[in-house]
Amino acid sequence: MPLRLLDSLVSTEALAAVFSDESVLGAMARFEAALARAEADAGVIPPAAAEVISGAASRGGFDAAAISRSARQSGTITIPFVETLTRMVRDRNAEAATFVHWGATSQDVSDTALVLCLVESQRVIEVDHRRLVVALRALSDAHADTPMLARTLLQPGPPITFGLKAAGWLASAERGYARMTAAYRDGCVLQFGGAAGTLAALGVHGPAVAAALAASLQLPLPDAPWHSHRDRLAALVAACGIYTGTLGKIARDISLLMQQEVLEAQEPGGSSSSMPHKRNPSGCAVVLAAAHRLPGLVSSFLAGMVQEHERGVGGWHAEAPTVADAVQATGSAAAALADAIGGLRVDSQRMRTNIDATHGAVFSERAMVLLAPGVGRERASRIISSSLADASSERNFAQLVAENVEVQGAVDPHVLATLGDPAAYLGSADHFRRRLLKLNE
Amino acid sequence: MPLRLLDSLVSTEALAAVFSDESVLGAMARFEAALARAEADAGVIPPAAAEVISGAASRGGFDAAAISRSARQSGTITIPFVETLTRMVRDRNAEAATFVHWGATSQDVSDTALVLCLVESQRVIEVDHRRLVVALRALSDAHADTPMLARTLLQPGPPITFGLKAAGWLASAERGYARMTAAYRDGCVLQFGGAAGTLAALGVHGPAVAAALAASLQLPLPDAPWHSHRDRLAALVAACGIYTGTLGKIARDISLLMQQEVLEAQEPGGSSSSMPHKRNPSGCAVVLAAAHRLPGLVSSFLAGMVQEHERGVGGWHAEAPTVADAVQATGSAAAALADAIGGLRVDSQRMRTNIDATHGAVFSERAMVLLAPGVGRERASRIISSSLADASSERNFAQLVAENVEVQGAVDPHVLATLGDPAAYLGSADHFRRRLLKLNE
Amino acid sequence: MPLRLLDSLVSTEALAAVFSDESVLGAMARFEAALARAEADAGVIPPAAAEVISGAASRGGFDAAAISRSARQSGTITIPFVETLTRMVRDRNAEAATFVHWGATSQDVSDTALVLCLVESQRVIEVDHRRLVVALRALSDAHADTPMLARTLLQPGPPITFGLKAAGWLASAERGYARMTAAYRDGCVLQFGGAAGTLAALGVHGPAVAAALAASLQLPLPDAPWHSHRDRLAALVAACGIYTGTLGKIARDISLLMQQEVLEAQEPGGSSSSMPHKRNPSGCAVVLAAAHRLPGLVSSFLAGMVQEHERGVGGWHAEAPTVADAVQATGSAAAALADAIGGLRVDSQRMRTNIDATHGAVFSERAMVLLAPGVGRERASRIISSSLADASSERNFAQLVAENVEVQGAVDPHVLATLGDPAAYLGSADHFRRRLLKLNE
Amino acid sequence: MPLRLLDSLVSTEALAAVFSDESVLGAMARFEAALARAEADAGVIPPAAAEVISGAASRGGFDAAAISRSARQSGTITIPFVETLTRMVRDRNAEAATFVHWGATSQDVSDTALVLCLVESQRVIEVDHRRLVVALRALSDAHADTPMLARTLLQPGPPITFGLKAAGWLASAERGYARMTAAYRDGCVLQFGGAAGTLAALGVHGPAVAAALAASLQLPLPDAPWHSHRDRLAALVAACGIYTGTLGKIARDISLLMQQEVLEAQEPGGSSSSMPHKRNPSGCAVVLAAAHRLPGLVSSFLAGMVQEHERGVGGWHAEAPTVADAVQATGSAAAALADAIGGLRVDSQRMRTNIDATHGAVFSERAMVLLAPGVGRERASRIISSSLADASSERNFAQLVAENVEVQGAVDPHVLATLGDPAAYLGSADHFRRRLLKLNE
Repeated sequence: MPLRLLDSLVSTEALAAVFSDESVLGAMARFEAALARAEADAGVIPPAAAEVISGAASRGGFDAAAISRSARQSGTITIPFVETLTRMVRDRNAEAATFVHWGATSQDVSDTALVLCLVESQRVIEVDHRRLVVALRALSDAHADTPMLARTLLQPGPPITFGLKAAGWLASAERGYARMTAAYRDGCVLQFGGAAGTLAALGVHGPAVAAALAASLQLPLPDAPWHSHRDRLAALVAACGIYTGTLGKIARDISLLMQQEVLEAQEPGGSSSSMPHKRNPSGCAVVLAAAHRLPGLVSSFLAGMVQEHERGVGGWHAEAPTVADAVQATGSAAAALADAIGGLRVDSQRMRTNIDATHGAVFSERAMVLLAPGVGRERASRIISSSLADASSERNFAQLVAENVEVQGAVDPHVLATLGDPAAYLGSADHFRRRLLKLNE
Repeated sequence: MPLRLLDSLVSTEALAAVFSDESVLGAMARFEAALARAEADAGVIPPAAAEVISGAASRGGFDAAAISRSARQSGTITIPFVETLTRMVRDRNAEAATFVHWGATSQDVSDTALVLCLVESQRVIEVDHRRLVVALRALSDAHADTPMLARTLLQPGPPITFGLKAAGWLASAERGYARMTAAYRDGCVLQFGGAAGTLAALGVHGPAVAAALAASLQLPLPDAPWHSHRDRLAALVAACGIYTGTLGKIARDISLLMQQEVLEAQEPGGSSSSMPHKRNPSGCAVVLAAAHRLPGLVSSFLAGMVQEHERGVGGWHAEAPTVADAVQATGSAAAALADAIGGLRVDSQRMRTNIDATHGAVFSERAMVLLAPGVGRERASRIISSSLADASSERNFAQLVAENVEVQGAVDPHVLATLGDPAAYLGSADHFRRRLLKLNE
Repeated sequence: MPLRLLDSLVSTEALAAVFSDESVLGAMARFEAALARAEADAGVIPPAAAEVISGAASRGGFDAAAISRSARQSGTITIPFVETLTRMVRDRNAEAATFVHWGATSQDVSDTALVLCLVESQRVIEVDHRRLVVALRALSDAHADTPMLARTLLQPGPPITFGLKAAGWLASAERGYARMTAAYRDGCVLQFGGAAGTLAALGVHGPAVAAALAASLQLPLPDAPWHSHRDRLAALVAACGIYTGTLGKIARDISLLMQQEVLEAQEPGGSSSSMPHKRNPSGCAVVLAAAHRLPGLVSSFLAGMVQEHERGVGGWHAEAPTVADAVQATGSAAAALADAIGGLRVDSQRMRTNIDATHGAVFSERAMVLLAPGVGRERASRIISSSLADASSERNFAQLVAENVEVQGAVDPHVLATLGDPAAYLGSADHFRRRLLKLNE
Repeated sequence: MPLRLLDSLVSTEALAAVFSDESVLGAMARFEAALARAEADAGVIPPAAAEVISGAASRGGFDAAAISRSARQSGTITIPFVETLTRMVRDRNAEAATFVHWGATSQDVSDTALVLCLVESQRVIEVDHRRLVVALRALSDAHADTPMLARTLLQPGPPITFGLKAAGWLASAERGYARMTAAYRDGCVLQFGGAAGTLAALGVHGPAVAAALAASLQLPLPDAPWHSHRDRLAALVAACGIYTGTLGKIARDISLLMQQEVLEAQEPGGSSSSMPHKRNPSGCAVVLAAAHRLPGLVSSFLAGMVQEHERGVGGWHAEAPTVADAVQATGSAAAALADAIGGLRVDSQRMRTNIDATHGAVFSERAMVLLAPGVGRERASRIISSSLADASSERNFAQLVAENVEVQGAVDPHVLATLGDPAAYLGSADHFRRRLLKLNE
């Protein structure tokens, strides 16, 4: 089951595989097999039955299409799955068939299967996130001293370094990934409660079977079943949304830097079907597609949290595709951004050119800082305004200010001489960069 | 490509087919074939080339998996699709290959292909909507005079008829479907503008080719290309959201009526994997799953409308799966609700029993209306309160009020005798029912 | 009650007034007054009582803070409002107090009051929308022939005209506003159904009283009460979302054109607290703030449509602030964009400079169209690639192509001479512009 | 500034006060005062100036309406605020006016002011959350052994205890609150970076001033300014959404238990304007209103995270009302649910009656568990089905099964005798309850 064509830009092959029918059915089968074994070990069902069940489950051969079709009638994919498994077991051993899915409820299987897929998805995303942070770190180090325009409301501001910008990207991506990691850890736990969430069908053996099942599936055992308490999954989906929002911010920045008129950085990108000259920020587009997709998916999940009593009507039923879509889009963003950053070409010279093209105007804040204490804010303001108005490619703002007679008496000429020098007005840029990168200073 | 297992409850086989790789590739191929023919007719490309191109496109044989994989690099499925088609054409006729996709841009193809799939989706949904309204109409007619409790904030109120309730469901579903129909009609239009949206590559032939292309694909021709103006699709997705919200409301109502403690209606539903006695509102769960899914999808689409200049970065790229998911969930809801309503078993007797179980308390409003003009609101209030407190299965509220001496002088005894009769307090229920059903009175 | 400081960028004073406590209480009072009069006219309550009630209601003097506080207990602002009104009436005439709110339910009052505020809000937004379209139309006409770069994925493409761009903005804004107008018209209808939605308390007089009430409040009378059928309001909120999404797209475009490195247009904007040289796209920021706000509000509304039975628990209760916020943000966007467009300074010369800065690369598509028929696509591709690589400010792409020997034999030299002329490659730009503006051609 | 009437159900007076104009202006003033003092201490500005500035800021007297009006022009409330403050300072000391807002940027002030309000909001919510968990704990302890129906898909299932149900509510509310607490802690940090986020205007003194400012405002100092990195606030808003979703689930459950037909629990609730007999789940409605409101607000925030470069256009501008609304709705839910749970009347007898009303059908799972090992799943299934069909108020399912001859040989009669006893089929209910409450066992 390859990635659906319409989903090409919001998933990856690897993640589509994680949530494919094969993977989901495999996870469901693992649950039933492990359950039977755990129950046999606890003396709840006959060991022979467990062997047949786990054998059949492991063997696979489920008809995904038939199960999917039937799921709409029963409101869950588990019921037709269990029926199929029971038939398979009965074909080999009628008695064993009695003990298929013993003491479990549908949601135990489908929730745990989703959790098992999620565990797998984390491994996939981890790789791309690591590539991303390595690439960002390299960029930040390489450009620790590269001045570029800050841009606020898309207008030029005093300089920053590209190293600081990349460090800001990196630190926010790391914070986001740390939240995801925590949410994965807290959210990927066993679901096992039986019909009412009390494991009543297992009598006194409930806790022991649950513990063994969790151990066998390598999942933590939560305090209690969580059939209608979906906050852990909500936290995971939300963490995906926050992380992807951060990746989207980085991609937006790159796509803006990549404008022909700015051209301070270029991602490898893609070509155009009609315009031979073009190089598109295709990687950024994929990241931003995910950033557009996630907020709605998060809200769908949150709205579905209001689930009735011990198992809801509808809220739960909407979850699986939402979770799968959210995780896939998140991983798609991480992969695309890792590629884009990994292949980013940075043009330090153009960054400098773009600073110069403001004719020094971006140093007007600095001029105010230098002038105001000496000449007062209002006079400083007048000098700056007239210098801004006169600044041109021939005589830039810094020169004009320095030549002003009022200024000359009021400001140290050595300082004044550096007014238009980006390197002289970076403030704590490197201090912040090092803190963001957790470097010792 | 069957319905993905995880999507079983939020799509149908028929709609999954509409948005399948086969369907999408077929629509893209139709576009390219029709374009070549339209351009040949206008004298823009050689007729022979058009023949080869449309032949190759019609023949199909595209490798969806390869195209999907490559799409992530180029940021659209069209580029690898056109490359594949070009290769196919070149294999037959090198010169013809020159004219593949002539004058078009990627988005022309993918947008129009999406539109063609949408046109198809409407046909599928139409059938289920029709089933739904026929079933609702039958219910409303059959129960025009069946009293049941109104329930406000889930608490019992004065009676309505089930006929009115069903008519309210029907009229809102019809309003919703009318909005969808209008949005389908306005939104399903040709996309064709070339690289910059000016059809410049076609010289003076742009409008003629566009008109012919639209005619050939049986799509309306809009005023102009709409590459970054997505309001028409937004209106369609929003209309799906509103319609599905209404279906969700109906499903919520049914699932509540189906509670064991209420049991006034039952949908065919499904069974449970662990509880042999259960009959679940599975159809309602499927409808409600869609109603949980849509709001987030609508918000994703709307948030993505802010698309840069002549083609956006990311907003557009997120759209196709959002639209496809929204339409599929909508159709899934319509199908499931048509089944649920079509098979609904209504228990009029239980409706009456549930009214009686309030011991007449739901007629307290009516008692106020009858008493207040005669005895004043405050005295009426006291009488009603004490009667409510004393009401029981032995002596109900209506009797208690009627026996009150103060009341006897103030209210017509014939009217008073009907105080606890549901049929005597239906007000304009049938008037409203008939208006909702557009019946002449 | 002025605009709350934190809401400054997502509402306007005029719209904040429409949804202020004064306005809401006034609308509620109008409902109760009109109801009493309509009921007196129908002979349902004593005329004298109606006179006292409508007098008290008109006089006002409600304590908004007390009502607001009490609303949390009763789950609606209507109950404390009606209690207050009843006290006021009783102070003048104890008997009349009996007939306050006669036959109505809380939701009748609060829904109709909301509707009355909405009617008012439309008048406010209309003015700004009209300003906006007049300004856009003027821009489009003034720049019908001004070439500028198309930008797709933020990369330069073949030229369009600014007139076409403005026409595209205008037509989409008009489509959006037309949807809002229709939704206002369909959604702003009377709510009046009494406790169960049957007007049972009015006996046979329900329809007559409802009709008179609607007439008095100048609201259309719907088929039936719509207490738990919220699709009409949903359609209005969604229409706000779509319209605002379109305005957001325009604002995004302007903010991008306003970048120092692009500088093709400038809105009046605002200054910076720390950077004297800056001119910020503040108007665009306000528009985009609304465009960010709406999608979530739309999804909240849609998710709340699933309302139980005859009056829901929670879904309805969340609506009023959502609707008020959505409409205010929409109007805020319209006002800000009307200002921004009305004061837009367009720099046609810079538009031309930015085209020239691509060294002709944006005509590579045109070169392909001219060359491919003569020399074949592959050879054309090679010539174009090498010319793109060699293009510079000294010798641009068009010259390089024209100088190529292979090309000279294959393409009409007169046509070739215009290869780099923007005016020669505008295709159907003006045709589309005229269609978008509904001009006869 | 009281709570706006339309917001009555989605905020509280206490939280409305936290985000009122007075509070916001006060926080902004605290920032400017603390900044001036910190800069004076670092030798950046004259101590005398700092004194005048902090004096003026502390004195207050800002005209909120004027600032709000002007904010739309400048795109932020800070610019008119700083202008006002500067005027106030200048009136006392012209030189000091030079140093108002020295080295800071608008966003430093408005972000930090928002953070200060958030810190305050946490104190308010904390109180209500504590009330809530105390009440839930008491409920769980009091009903540790009270059996009630589990309800899955709103259909009756095997029994649980109300103690377990309440423990599940409690544990999920505690998890949600713990996430909020962590998000408050991580998100409520100082914003201070100056125009470009480098504190360049402070020269070498940036870090020292930042540290002193943070200390003075009792806010943690982050690694670096976070002007366009909004993940920390996103995490807070998302945590509000998850917590409120959980509260919504509890409220939904209570509103369902409160149905006349179920009536196992009743919150204090409210009355009806038209129906004297009614007791509405008004508290639940308020909680659910918040649960409907949050998901959209979360998605708005997440969608706005894609902020351009060093300060975004629009994304940031939409945030403040979204954050304020989200926190207010969250606190409103906590307050309303604390009241509802604190006043909850639980009817254990009715819980038992409702179990009995299923005629033992909810023990069909248990019957299967008991019978299947002895007689095989298929024969067990037949026996159970026919017993379910025959069960009535006279002879319930458990009796019918026990009387079946096939069964008698296969199942221990002592066990069989308890088939219909809820207390005998609670499984691990108390084990789970104790784990959820973190009780030692």
